[in-house]
Amino acid sequence: MSKVSVLNPEEPIKVQMENLIRQKQKEIVAGLESVETKKFHPDEWKRGENGGGGRSMVLADGTTFEKAGVNISVVHGTLTPGAITRMKADHRNIKTSADGTVGFFAAGLSMVIHPWNPHAPTTHLNYRYFEISNPDGSTQTWWFGGGADLTPSYLYPEDAKLFHQNHKAALDPFGKDLYPRFKKWCDEYFFITQRGEARGIGGTFFDDFDELPAQKCLELCEASFDAFVPSYVPIMKRRKDLPFTPEEKQWQQVRRGRYVEYNLIYDRGTKFGLETPGSRVESILMSMPKTATWLYNYEPEEGTREAELLEVVRHPIEWV
Amino acid sequence: MSKVSVLNPEEPIKVQMENLIRQKQKEIVAGLESVETKKFHPDEWKRGENGGGGRSMVLADGTTFEKAGVNISVVHGTLTPGAITRMKADHRNIKTSADGTVGFFAAGLSMVIHPWNPHAPTTHLNYRYFEISNPDGSTQTWWFGGGADLTPSYLYPEDAKLFHQNHKAALDPFGKDLYPRFKKWCDEYFFITQRGEARGIGGTFFDDFDELPAQKCLELCEASFDAFVPSYVPIMKRRKDLPFTPEEKQWQQVRRGRYVEYNLIYDRGTKFGLETPGSRVESILMSMPKTATWLYNYEPEEGTREAELLEVVRHPIEWV
Repeated sequence: MSKVSVLNPEEPIKVQMENLIRQKQKEIVAGLESVETKKFHPDEWKRGENGGGGRSMVLADGTTFEKAGVNISVVHGTLTPGAITRMKADHRNIKTSADGTVGFFAAGLSMVIHPWNPHAPTTHLNYRYFEISNPDGSTQTWWFGGGADLTPSYLYPEDAKLFHQNHKAALDPFGKDLYPRFKKWCDEYFFITQRGEARGIGGTFFDDFDELPAQKCLELCEASFDAFVPSYVPIMKRRKDLPFTPEEKQWQQVRRGRYVEYNLIYDRGTKFGLETPGSRVESILMSMPKTATWLYNYEPEEGTREAELLEVVRHPIEWV
Repeated sequence: MSKVSVLNPEEPIKVQMENLIRQKQKEIVAGLESVETKKFHPDEWKRGENGGGGRSMVLADGTTFEKAGVNISVVHGTLTPGAITRMKADHRNIKTSADGTVGFFAAGLSMVIHPWNPHAPTTHLNYRYFEISNPDGSTQTWWFGGGADLTPSYLYPEDAKLFHQNHKAALDPFGKDLYPRFKKWCDEYFFITQRGEARGIGGTFFDDFDELPAQKCLELCEASFDAFVPSYVPIMKRRKDLPFTPEEKQWQQVRRGRYVEYNLIYDRGTKFGLETPGSRVESILMSMPKTATWLYNYEPEEGTREAELLEVVRHPIEWV
């Protein structure tokens, strides 16, 4: 990718991150619209009496996409004691004000795409910056988090390889250890314990990341953003018009049930969002598929394409 | 109800509770089959290397019921430290063994019924007995919990009144204060915080209940069990064959999405079940509807039947 960067090291990290996600929202929406006949609709929102707001770009009942959302949010305010406690597992040194709260700033882009065709994978991407302020308003601590991953109902190894290869190439300039660590982290993080299954075939995931200077972290996010469209759009071109049977559509619906289970039971972003006062439930639960199915005690037969997918989510493999 | 009781005060509470739930499983299944052309299928399961097991009676794709499960389980073993901690909020006096664990026994019947027709309500019922043992094996503490509630997509006040009236009549002989308390508890417990909505139009709910002698608690459960079939079966007879539009079916699917949100994010039984080693995920998630829908930012228009339902789940009312 030889795009012109929107990052300007002379501006504060907060401002650069906001500029970055605004730009990447446009580029991702344009990329997705290149394989879709309908347009995304903008939906601006404010966080009520609290600080900040966001801009959702949403599409429902498209020709390629059943439900798709590319959401940016820039919010700030005061964290609840509950949120601080959960955060302190990773950030034990947080100093609170006399009333037990801390000021925060968060900016991120979050995307979930559910295509119609059961041969086309669901995908998720999110990059975010988080800052905690001291009681006097100065920055106390900061970190980046994010990643991108693929959740197919049917396994196409060439799709998995392309997605992983591009995301590895984006990370390699920042440290050869990053892709292997973030790939493993992704497999472990998006894990549905009660099913003994990863949510999908993985990708990258990182959180609480402050190992590099903040400016380098911004560049890492930018490079990772830029790996997405050249991965997902070619996959969609290959899969969006494949013929499928009602049984294949049903299997997709069962897998979407798993997606719902993961997001509502485990996902840290969803939990954090739902517990943040004044947050917007529709933007947080934009990640839900339009439709999902739960069948009692359903297990595909050995040797089928469905069993092949289960095997790879139960035993994640190295794609690069 | 003038049924012959299966309770025998000369037997231990554990044994009586097991006998009670076995009998009520048969009666409830028979009641439900009286408004359905398909039969429930038994599915026996053991808790692997841990103690106990259960018997699920399940029905999928019936003529009246899209998905229905009436499950009993009788399990015992050792509680994890995580489960104890959550429980200690309500049972602070639990004494653990040297390794931090405690022995437990749990027996309960759990039922969730999702009908096809959007005018017919989803319903849930659960009565359970829980016992914690001392390191020497003697009983340390015990409690009962449970209740029954109704989750319609369209409001029929006569259905709500019948359901509440019958459950009030079952509780009144054990204390006139019980129904008002359990009704309020139900509205508060089945509350979807992020939506500002109760899950449905309520019913009864109680937990950690040991105010009455254990034998009286068993009788209270028996009477409450017996209130269910004469409430739900008449409602189903009125609603199961009503004509409906595709828009009404879609509204039912949206409401089922809320049901999924409640059960996966909040339900204590689901959380406890999924975290209990060796528990059976298919029996726990039997409560999921067969299908559910999430539409982005969907809000029914004022003055519609859909808005009428929203009003009553946002502001629960007294039915009796």
